[in-house]
Amino acid sequence: MNELQLRTLLEELAAGTIDADAAGRQLLDALRARPFTDLGFARVDHHRSVRQGFPEVILGLGKTPAQVAAIAAEIVARGSTLLITRAAPAVYAAVLERAPAAAYYPDAAIIALRQQDVAPGKGKILVVSAGTSDVPVAEEAAITAELMGNDVERLFDVGVAGLHRLLSERARLAAARVIIVVAGMEGALPSVVSGLVSVPVVAVPTSIGYGASFGGIAALLGMLNSCASGVSVVNIDNGFGAGNIASLINHL
Amino acid sequence: MNELQLRTLLEELAAGTIDADAAGRQLLDALRARPFTDLGFARVDHHRSVRQGFPEVILGLGKTPAQVAAIAAEIVARGSTLLITRAAPAVYAAVLERAPAAAYYPDAAIIALRQQDVAPGKGKILVVSAGTSDVPVAEEAAITAELMGNDVERLFDVGVAGLHRLLSERARLAAARVIIVVAGMEGALPSVVSGLVSVPVVAVPTSIGYGASFGGIAALLGMLNSCASGVSVVNIDNGFGAGNIASLINHL
Amino acid sequence: MNELQLRTLLEELAAGTIDADAAGRQLLDALRARPFTDLGFARVDHHRSVRQGFPEVILGLGKTPAQVAAIAAEIVARGSTLLITRAAPAVYAAVLERAPAAAYYPDAAIIALRQQDVAPGKGKILVVSAGTSDVPVAEEAAITAELMGNDVERLFDVGVAGLHRLLSERARLAAARVIIVVAGMEGALPSVVSGLVSVPVVAVPTSIGYGASFGGIAALLGMLNSCASGVSVVNIDNGFGAGNIASLINHL
Amino acid sequence: MNELQLRTLLEELAAGTIDADAAGRQLLDALRARPFTDLGFARVDHHRSVRQGFPEVILGLGKTPAQVAAIAAEIVARGSTLLITRAAPAVYAAVLERAPAAAYYPDAAIIALRQQDVAPGKGKILVVSAGTSDVPVAEEAAITAELMGNDVERLFDVGVAGLHRLLSERARLAAARVIIVVAGMEGALPSVVSGLVSVPVVAVPTSIGYGASFGGIAALLGMLNSCASGVSVVNIDNGFGAGNIASLINHL
Amino acid sequence: MNELQLRTLLEELAAGTIDADAAGRQLLDALRARPFTDLGFARVDHHRSVRQGFPEVILGLGKTPAQVAAIAAEIVARGSTLLITRAAPAVYAAVLERAPAAAYYPDAAIIALRQQDVAPGKGKILVVSAGTSDVPVAEEAAITAELMGNDVERLFDVGVAGLHRLLSERARLAAARVIIVVAGMEGALPSVVSGLVSVPVVAVPTSIGYGASFGGIAALLGMLNSCASGVSVVNIDNGFGAGNIASLINHL
Amino acid sequence: MNELQLRTLLEELAAGTIDADAAGRQLLDALRARPFTDLGFARVDHHRSVRQGFPEVILGLGKTPAQVAAIAAEIVARGSTLLITRAAPAVYAAVLERAPAAAYYPDAAIIALRQQDVAPGKGKILVVSAGTSDVPVAEEAAITAELMGNDVERLFDVGVAGLHRLLSERARLAAARVIIVVAGMEGALPSVVSGLVSVPVVAVPTSIGYGASFGGIAALLGMLNSCASGVSVVNIDNGFGAGNIASLINHL
Amino acid sequence: MNELQLRTLLEELAAGTIDADAAGRQLLDALRARPFTDLGFARVDHHRSVRQGFPEVILGLGKTPAQVAAIAAEIVARGSTLLITRAAPAVYAAVLERAPAAAYYPDAAIIALRQQDVAPGKGKILVVSAGTSDVPVAEEAAITAELMGNDVERLFDVGVAGLHRLLSERARLAAARVIIVVAGMEGALPSVVSGLVSVPVVAVPTSIGYGASFGGIAALLGMLNSCASGVSVVNIDNGFGAGNIASLINHL
Amino acid sequence: MNELQLRTLLEELAAGTIDADAAGRQLLDALRARPFTDLGFARVDHHRSVRQGFPEVILGLGKTPAQVAAIAAEIVARGSTLLITRAAPAVYAAVLERAPAAAYYPDAAIIALRQQDVAPGKGKILVVSAGTSDVPVAEEAAITAELMGNDVERLFDVGVAGLHRLLSERARLAAARVIIVVAGMEGALPSVVSGLVSVPVVAVPTSIGYGASFGGIAALLGMLNSCASGVSVVNIDNGFGAGNIASLINHL
Repeated sequence: MNELQLRTLLEELAAGTIDADAAGRQLLDALRARPFTDLGFARVDHHRSVRQGFPEVILGLGKTPAQVAAIAAEIVARGSTLLITRAAPAVYAAVLERAPAAAYYPDAAIIALRQQDVAPGKGKILVVSAGTSDVPVAEEAAITAELMGNDVERLFDVGVAGLHRLLSERARLAAARVIIVVAGMEGALPSVVSGLVSVPVVAVPTSIGYGASFGGIAALLGMLNSCASGVSVVNIDNGFGAGNIASLINHL
Repeated sequence: MNELQLRTLLEELAAGTIDADAAGRQLLDALRARPFTDLGFARVDHHRSVRQGFPEVILGLGKTPAQVAAIAAEIVARGSTLLITRAAPAVYAAVLERAPAAAYYPDAAIIALRQQDVAPGKGKILVVSAGTSDVPVAEEAAITAELMGNDVERLFDVGVAGLHRLLSERARLAAARVIIVVAGMEGALPSVVSGLVSVPVVAVPTSIGYGASFGGIAALLGMLNSCASGVSVVNIDNGFGAGNIASLINHL
Repeated sequence: MNELQLRTLLEELAAGTIDADAAGRQLLDALRARPFTDLGFARVDHHRSVRQGFPEVILGLGKTPAQVAAIAAEIVARGSTLLITRAAPAVYAAVLERAPAAAYYPDAAIIALRQQDVAPGKGKILVVSAGTSDVPVAEEAAITAELMGNDVERLFDVGVAGLHRLLSERARLAAARVIIVVAGMEGALPSVVSGLVSVPVVAVPTSIGYGASFGGIAALLGMLNSCASGVSVVNIDNGFGAGNIASLINHL
Repeated sequence: MNELQLRTLLEELAAGTIDADAAGRQLLDALRARPFTDLGFARVDHHRSVRQGFPEVILGLGKTPAQVAAIAAEIVARGSTLLITRAAPAVYAAVLERAPAAAYYPDAAIIALRQQDVAPGKGKILVVSAGTSDVPVAEEAAITAELMGNDVERLFDVGVAGLHRLLSERARLAAARVIIVVAGMEGALPSVVSGLVSVPVVAVPTSIGYGASFGGIAALLGMLNSCASGVSVVNIDNGFGAGNIASLINHL
Repeated sequence: MNELQLRTLLEELAAGTIDADAAGRQLLDALRARPFTDLGFARVDHHRSVRQGFPEVILGLGKTPAQVAAIAAEIVARGSTLLITRAAPAVYAAVLERAPAAAYYPDAAIIALRQQDVAPGKGKILVVSAGTSDVPVAEEAAITAELMGNDVERLFDVGVAGLHRLLSERARLAAARVIIVVAGMEGALPSVVSGLVSVPVVAVPTSIGYGASFGGIAALLGMLNSCASGVSVVNIDNGFGAGNIASLINHL
Repeated sequence: MNELQLRTLLEELAAGTIDADAAGRQLLDALRARPFTDLGFARVDHHRSVRQGFPEVILGLGKTPAQVAAIAAEIVARGSTLLITRAAPAVYAAVLERAPAAAYYPDAAIIALRQQDVAPGKGKILVVSAGTSDVPVAEEAAITAELMGNDVERLFDVGVAGLHRLLSERARLAAARVIIVVAGMEGALPSVVSGLVSVPVVAVPTSIGYGASFGGIAALLGMLNSCASGVSVVNIDNGFGAGNIASLINHL
Repeated sequence: MNELQLRTLLEELAAGTIDADAAGRQLLDALRARPFTDLGFARVDHHRSVRQGFPEVILGLGKTPAQVAAIAAEIVARGSTLLITRAAPAVYAAVLERAPAAAYYPDAAIIALRQQDVAPGKGKILVVSAGTSDVPVAEEAAITAELMGNDVERLFDVGVAGLHRLLSERARLAAARVIIVVAGMEGALPSVVSGLVSVPVVAVPTSIGYGASFGGIAALLGMLNSCASGVSVVNIDNGFGAGNIASLINHL
Repeated sequence: MNELQLRTLLEELAAGTIDADAAGRQLLDALRARPFTDLGFARVDHHRSVRQGFPEVILGLGKTPAQVAAIAAEIVARGSTLLITRAAPAVYAAVLERAPAAAYYPDAAIIALRQQDVAPGKGKILVVSAGTSDVPVAEEAAITAELMGNDVERLFDVGVAGLHRLLSERARLAAARVIIVVAGMEGALPSVVSGLVSVPVVAVPTSIGYGASFGGIAALLGMLNSCASGVSVVNIDNGFGAGNIASLINHL
């Protein structure tokens, strides 16, 4: 039971559409639920939805398909929304056996199954990418934010070497409530974007590049040293984190 | 003329407290102003207030006291609010000659002079620090956010080695709209704080530590790799950036 | 002949269950044995059991299956207990030909064959892991400690982003004589655990993570910079080392 | 009230040397005490003694003398034992004004004032150093362990380039229950020592060296990669941590 | 005798303004000159002017004032133009005793004495800096290029966080034959500049910044990974190198 | 329409070989063209040819063959010259379907299709490589420069360990207007070459080497620290960048 | 014609076993030979044998089998001894077609064909390795030294964790004229060996290890920081270099 | 008693210039001497002269003047030759009080007092430096080698940017038995020198440089990756080590 569901229940009770008994039973069920399930190799956190407005998200990386599927089954069984990131096709196959309704977003390597309504974000989140190669990370951010209830727009391949591509889209930049900027190589785009707007910019360095890009370190350092003061940064390739933070901000 | 001043002017005109002529003259003056002044060694950006809601902030580091003072004089002469970070006492002495009303916050190494009203932030910003040695960076964040119109609370020395100090303050954590977490050494505090709340956490690694802390790299990496997904990060010791981002979020 | 076997022999002699001649022969055999066997590519250290209470352990990494099997055969022929870490299935196949009774622990990638009793550890060793992906390293630590005669408990997936999962197990933390904490990403868990107990914590960073985790460097640095003073650290992914050290401590 | 004091109180009550009323009052006082005092810039953790057997230790680094002195005064006022590490002479001067009985150990840069008995360690802790330049860190470890109730021996300047200096002291190595090895440069000594004994070795890399020692990184990496499996490691120059861990082990 | 002097001599001979004897003597003198003078601690390269069009330049860093002055005296005695970089005031004092006509440029930390004409560059070199703190490095580049015969323009403090400051100067960018871009922090400016022009851009990272700028590494990496393909890079803070390369290009 | 085409058109008009109507239509078409085409995952920059004299070049790395082929088709359709770097054979297969006339240079991993004349470079570009393993990067540089209209010579395997191989080619060094030097391992060759000539040297570190070459870092650092002042540097393995910069210089 | 061949020729002439004409022809042939052959992608250095006593050695890494084979054919055709390092089996297959008599040493990944006598080394070279996994690098060193005319002994798997294995071989250490020490992990063995002998020690770090061994960096740093002053170091895994240097020393 | 003294004694006995009694007493005294003296903070190794042909050398760095002086007094009292490196003037003052005959070499920061004859080296050691700033390290190497009995020549400031300075000294290169090459910045000189000679080259990187020289890392990496195979490397600025190794080689 997340915050939205709790509020809906209380409103229905107040409106008389359900009676006190039914409401009481639902509340008791929620309270009785153990805050986590221990699968031995994993403790599935059922409390997160209450604490943070969205259920536990599964990072697919470093787990076997069987482990991911078992955790997914546990989440789905509770009626929570399922979100798995960094999911290879083999993981999707394993999850489908336990959660046949789950969908796969191959560009973003995300598996998802919506089972609960989420509160809608208040404005628009704009996801900007510097290059074509950055699209997978940008999609991870965009789809995460969409699943968390946000209205998301995409603006891809507007890197700083051809500034007119970005400057021709100032209206879309100005219309966003939060902006996610995804860039590899020298990671200069967040500074330029942040200098043009007055909303928070969440920067995602990507591992795109070669040689002295060092798997994203150059972009990461560029973003951390941004001369524009509205930029905060997440881990290299962490599209999910950026989407989640943008959503937290957009729900304030 | 920042956004608040513009809105106020239009409201006064609508309310009849000033007449169209006076309003027109003020608007013309603002439009006529060049967007920056070229001092040779610096181009003072007078447009930033319009673009981003707060005038250009001077980073004291790497400039001579005379350079800082000249830029400060230029900002003050425009009637803008002055904010200088990383300001040693010698810089304050130089600035005082050009802006005698400027105040000095020694704990935060900040010089400031409020000359314009700013729009108030909507909620509370909580600044949390892991240890006593992190206080200067935490103060830079706190005072920056206050000068930008926010209601700021402080919660210092609640590092993870003595968890009860943090857990006894859950109410204050829950009451904040944005949280800034400042920590050196292993930089674990933002993960723990973010796991307890549902609002965005802006993490500031500090250069506090020795040996393998490598001047803040350990804390920075810890924060970038946070297993809690609501954490974004700014540069080592960048209290100002964190304060500014928190303020941007708190004004949404 | 390890310390336990020596002590047992002397006690049997004192108790009269064996006579002086038999005891003498056994001792002479032990003294006559060369302290190592030279296989050309390896010098198998038969002395280690006497010096350190447990025979030489084979690190499977970087050796061919044939080399591992030859060293294993040498150890088994001496009647010593066999322990091979980082053993891929192909290595197990090669070892089985020389030591058909050897067992394989796939989660921990360990091959083992108990041939000698070991002195029992005095208390309980608790192995704590932050996430599901850390389980292989945690299992390497746990099985190593078990083979060395210790009573081992496991507490997995209690990372700091959902603190209630750990706090609900304070009784198990308090009951341990030594604690091994295995964590990747930001490596914050050892600090939190150490702050809750008064026994030594052996921290194992894992290579779990991506981007700025740099193959475990972030976790390693986090643990080395722990603000909790009871934490010592071993190499990234070195579950064996942690299990061995915990066993040494638990046998004091 | 630490564990030893609690046990003593209960024993006196059982033995009838104090009556139930007096014992009750003392227990109530202890329970009533707030677990920490908030000085604004610091939250002094009065609970640590109960949780971990020794009161909070002050790291002198990165705090002003005035801050250190204020925290020290708070600890001393509670009747707890005072221990300050990395204390420059100026800090000692400031502390003396608030705690005139405090002593200064210049080689170790430690300030201390014993106010409570501590439980004695069970065996001997041996502190070994590779070179003369490592002595300050070795002394920090040794004095920390002594203040925590341990019997400590020192064996200095026995680096691996002149192995006979170490091999001539095998008896002292064999007599120790825990060994701390302090070394800079290539940090090879812990491997050699650990290969000779069957007790845990706590290794402390030092920043001693030049060029490619990189302020202790070479020694740190050497120790983390030790081919001897009984070595765990603490931060560069962290003599205090090593002394504390050795004491925790020696009290088991 | 540099290339210009040689060409002038031959033209004068052809024009009859000097006779063959005089020309012959001058050429013989030049040929007889040893290609370097050995001062013991330095071999002053008198050949460089012939080989590379400009005499040996003295890097002031890491030499004593006396050493710099001795080398300078040797160069001046040959009638060559003197150029010393990274020269502290104490070095200038020492040089003045041997070369009283030498001038000092404090912003650029350069000492110079023109003794030969140099061939003029063909177009304009534009030196662009991102911030006020980058000015010393930018001045080192500008003055080096001027001393080597180039027409130099300066465009300072046009960093990417306030793009309008740069975009308002597109005409000056378009008028340059070579552009030097000096930037610290994230080092994004060369990418943006290079995207706007069709001439070579020589990028100079500076050590300006703090925290994760790592003394200029962030800027260096940013520039090396520039997504604009017309950018080549010199060492951190190497204004001299950039000025020299720009001059080489501008003399083609 | 690039600069050369524009100039040709105007000359033909002036010469009367085309009439004003035809010229007007061509100019209008060029002006009407949108400066970029948005393919969703890519914004193809049709303006670059005008701005920088050569159309957008596609970096093959990190894009799917289908994405590369789609961008290529867009460029070819505009009549622009196609240049794709880091193109694996699978990419060539995909491109061939959309641009059957495209050629493949396997040594350089380049795909190209000339559709426009380019202005010729003014002198010779010499591409020098230290070793045989550096040839692929050297070829990427050479072919890039050739496609951009330059006369290119190659001088391969003249590393500094056998100096006579280089010194025997001084005439070819002296004949070049710009020199590209490609080297891995210690990257010493650019310093030696630059010391022998008076033209700009563009240095390309390669990832050739092993161990402490760290994928080209050693060569990169060697080149950045060159004691010869005419050397500027591009990213590791960035043959394309070097070829492009050399071409920009050679067209001045 | 190497130095030994030259000396032999002159001695034969002096002894009258060949006449002056024959000797003259041989010398003329040697003088007429070009110092290198240009294969386009490689310049084979035929002069090296004269300059350095051994022909050019081919590093197999980074070249195609066809390139290696072509260079090998060129060397063999000149009657020089062939030595190829880092040669995979596929390279051997290609070389065999051009030089059917070439031999393959799979443990060392070396291809060789002796065609000239080499001057014998004066003493014994001892190759010591720390562990079984270091054997391939140790073999590369040993076979290189043997091919260069040295008497080589091997002493493998004597790492510092079991010191008695090394100490029992002091006689062999004392009998060597030069010692090569090959070690991964913490790289401590060269310090210990150097402390026991009075001859030069050439240390080879290997990439053996995991986690914080960082592919051999830990071992490399350990060796560079050796507290024993007779240790010099070559690149990670550079067995060939160590063998060559030891041979140079052993021929003095 | 070093090897030379021992040999002399035996030759005198054989020659009858001393009798068996006197020789016996001297030998007994040498055998009776403890192999080291324990000063508490230092164990002075009196055995090193026997083991390694030269007494223990004191590294001045990281020790107090009083500690250095006490160790020096102990060495001098034994009649051994004193050698102290990295000795600041304050150290010399302290040593003079205990060893008034000691000499100071300020360029090399060495204190020395010859008290024993050393065996002479067999050939010439040439110390080559790239630049003037490298002279202090080069002098440390040169004076170390001289004190160890070698004939040393110096060749300074012959860096690769002006190759003719080096090439004009080929005769001196050819005359050396061992060559030490000292270089900062890109560290290219050892490769070039090694390519010209057939004797071992000991390379010393120096911390000379700025920016991306990273305190000597660039030079160190350059030397480790040398494409010339006769180069081995010591720590950054380790002139002493190079001098010692060259001496060991030169005494073979």
